[in-house]
Amino acid sequence: MKAKTNLTMLCDFYELTMANGYFQTGLKDRICYFDVFYRSVPDKAGFALCAGLAQVVDYIQNLRFDEEDLEYLRSKNCFSEEFLSYLAEFRFTGDIWAVPEGTPVFPNEPIMIVRAPAIQAQFIETFVLLSLNHQSLIATKSNRIVRAAEGRPVAEFGSRRAQGADGALLGARASYIAGCGATACTMADQWYGSPATGTMAHSWVQMFPDEYTAFKTYCEMYPNNATLLVDTYNVLKSGVPNAIRAFKEVLAPKGITKCGIRLDSGDLTYLSRRARKMLDEAGLTECKIFASNALDEYIIRDLVRQGARIDSFGVGERLITSRSSPVFGGVYKLAAIEEDDGTITPKIKISENAAKITTPHFKKVYRLFSKSTGKAEADLICVHDEQFDFTQPIELFDPDATWKRKVFTDVDAVELLIPIFKDGELVYNVPTIQASRAYCQRQVDSLWDEVKRFENPHNYYVDLSQKLWDIKHALLNSHDHG
Amino acid sequence: MKAKTNLTMLCDFYELTMANGYFQTGLKDRICYFDVFYRSVPDKAGFALCAGLAQVVDYIQNLRFDEEDLEYLRSKNCFSEEFLSYLAEFRFTGDIWAVPEGTPVFPNEPIMIVRAPAIQAQFIETFVLLSLNHQSLIATKSNRIVRAAEGRPVAEFGSRRAQGADGALLGARASYIAGCGATACTMADQWYGSPATGTMAHSWVQMFPDEYTAFKTYCEMYPNNATLLVDTYNVLKSGVPNAIRAFKEVLAPKGITKCGIRLDSGDLTYLSRRARKMLDEAGLTECKIFASNALDEYIIRDLVRQGARIDSFGVGERLITSRSSPVFGGVYKLAAIEEDDGTITPKIKISENAAKITTPHFKKVYRLFSKSTGKAEADLICVHDEQFDFTQPIELFDPDATWKRKVFTDVDAVELLIPIFKDGELVYNVPTIQASRAYCQRQVDSLWDEVKRFENPHNYYVDLSQKLWDIKHALLNSHDHG
Repeated sequence: MKAKTNLTMLCDFYELTMANGYFQTGLKDRICYFDVFYRSVPDKAGFALCAGLAQVVDYIQNLRFDEEDLEYLRSKNCFSEEFLSYLAEFRFTGDIWAVPEGTPVFPNEPIMIVRAPAIQAQFIETFVLLSLNHQSLIATKSNRIVRAAEGRPVAEFGSRRAQGADGALLGARASYIAGCGATACTMADQWYGSPATGTMAHSWVQMFPDEYTAFKTYCEMYPNNATLLVDTYNVLKSGVPNAIRAFKEVLAPKGITKCGIRLDSGDLTYLSRRARKMLDEAGLTECKIFASNALDEYIIRDLVRQGARIDSFGVGERLITSRSSPVFGGVYKLAAIEEDDGTITPKIKISENAAKITTPHFKKVYRLFSKSTGKAEADLICVHDEQFDFTQPIELFDPDATWKRKVFTDVDAVELLIPIFKDGELVYNVPTIQASRAYCQRQVDSLWDEVKRFENPHNYYVDLSQKLWDIKHALLNSHDHG
Repeated sequence: MKAKTNLTMLCDFYELTMANGYFQTGLKDRICYFDVFYRSVPDKAGFALCAGLAQVVDYIQNLRFDEEDLEYLRSKNCFSEEFLSYLAEFRFTGDIWAVPEGTPVFPNEPIMIVRAPAIQAQFIETFVLLSLNHQSLIATKSNRIVRAAEGRPVAEFGSRRAQGADGALLGARASYIAGCGATACTMADQWYGSPATGTMAHSWVQMFPDEYTAFKTYCEMYPNNATLLVDTYNVLKSGVPNAIRAFKEVLAPKGITKCGIRLDSGDLTYLSRRARKMLDEAGLTECKIFASNALDEYIIRDLVRQGARIDSFGVGERLITSRSSPVFGGVYKLAAIEEDDGTITPKIKISENAAKITTPHFKKVYRLFSKSTGKAEADLICVHDEQFDFTQPIELFDPDATWKRKVFTDVDAVELLIPIFKDGELVYNVPTIQASRAYCQRQVDSLWDEVKRFENPHNYYVDLSQKLWDIKHALLNSHDHG
């Protein structure tokens, strides 16, 4: 593997000034609990998919300030030498729990919990959020697009419009976990195992004296993988006829029937139906039609509904930037502090904006699956040491509307957050990208269709235990200065 | 400087299959001309700012396939050994012209021209677009936000919501070129020189027994840089009074009057005015009020209009992702091919979508500045070897509405695209980020306010020379199969 950039210094500067502050005031080893959670789903969707954990694992394992970093920090004239010496030896020694990549997650439930000495727990905030926010964003969007295609393969084609190199590489990775079948990005294949694929650019066609020669040459070069871009001049009058001629003259004599054309402009429904007819009439019934050009889940859904004869989709800028909703708003909030005697003191952040009030304490999350249908019914957030007898009916209530109550019976309760680091040691086998992809598919299948609707999805239940609700409201009231 | 990841393999896979094709068919050294241009301005704005050139320079200078890359490519079973040997020695030997970073650019004019042997010119497409698209996007957005703030400093605060690590780092870089004064991202300072800054997180306040102790401790730690986050519990009843007490008890005895508070939630107009009054009444007239929380150019403009007493802004997710318009649609299109005798043959791409038709030929672009006002009046795209006498009145016409004509007199004509690489050698002194920032400011100042409006801006003139228009239309007609 080639050298990857060490990202230790990719932190908000205030993480360092606060760290220096904790160091100087004797708070550096105070054990803190931080939650990562998000407040609303991009595209007003019913659920998000969590991704980016593998890069957090890499980051934690490679946390190191080198001499150059310390020299830079020294030059800022606001850090003590003792603190810089401390940073030279800085490692992560805490615990992390997280949901596996590809897990559907809902607003306001922890998707990662960090328990560590104050400086460490605070310091990793920026990168942890960056990684989870970015890849969860792209995984969530990609899965919508894949579902819109109803089984037709979707390839990620967005590198050139990505927001930076990692936007391309890790976006391709996240899109693969979420169900895309391939990427155009070579390095995403080499590094992360998302299979790279591609056809040709218009420039290939323009490089030759005429379109037919361009197509013929390509078929001769890649007889087993000939997908021809047919819209450089005129799809139906030039592109498709020239493609048919090239397929018949080059591929047919070799007995090859597998081939394809790509449409990249114009009315894709109309053009694909006309092209399909022309290909079928030429006997090229196995020729696939591939479409691209500013696609997203809405356009693909319309194409499918209108009977477009498209076999697979290439999706670029609207996937790789999640264009319609390009921010995943994960936050990192202090939830508790451990006293010297081991007591855990819950902490809350109040806010003028009610939605910004946090849920305090060291928590765990159960997902309740119906035993009869296998479907996910509700998530229950509770205090870390609460015990429930899930063999008995369990009544949950809406934390914002406590009169809304529902009893669940006959459920399997699965803990969502699993141990990733324990005392700084990785205790998690990071799955292959293929395993995460398969897991993601199963988890999305466990959601009711109502939760998966694009518009006005059902609000999945994410409830607090009575004990946790009581703790939160006691803290809220104790801070009420209104 | 720490090792940066080599991004040679960050290419669309089709660049490699096409390269192999050019290699096998004897086209590899055919000199090609590619244009980078974009078709519409994000946010329907009147202009964009070009950025990302410095990273293209790095990329070109570091283009190298190493053994591991070649091994990976070999495993794909579609590249010849001769081609892989060729890649082992692959370097860029061509010419590149580009507009300097921070230049205002308009739709459909070349912002970069690449002249190189076919494989090289084609291969760099993905990364060139990725770099220019990403940083131009963020520079364009940042400049809007900076202009909305009307002279109040704007800091970039978005790392945690960026689309990947480069999204954060290079986004911070682009935002600085475009006029932001600082970034929260430490590494963007260390690597690119965009000054890092920061205040504190809510967790700092929560870590202490009470808000006052948190503030007092911070003032003791950083007396010369004490900006206190006042919205953890209640801004007006707790945050501001505790901040005032800490400033008076810790800073005043040291004779320090420079300090600040940060508002991160609630109604920023109301809270800032109330806080200002409280601070002034306490004699803290030099205390600055800093505001953050989902800001963008529209919200900042409203805050300024409503008389919010905010001295500077921190802008996060809506800047670092250009949330309202997160794609910069730069494209890379073949414009000409050089024959063996040196003749340049213009090439065009037709399309079902009229907007996707390209302007052929090896071109240059002049920007015409009025000598009397210094303002930019129009851009003129012409064939590379055309000569004009700009001391005489010059008539330009709209290429889409040729009856719209305008005569310009008394103009200075400046060539926009300047040489960056010549025969593979860098011939450009990449400016410091500070120099690019100053240049950007001057260039934006040269635009009429009408072009800079947020809504319905004036359409800046970008016209073709008669000769170029004739060549384009001759090619269009020769391909007309309608």
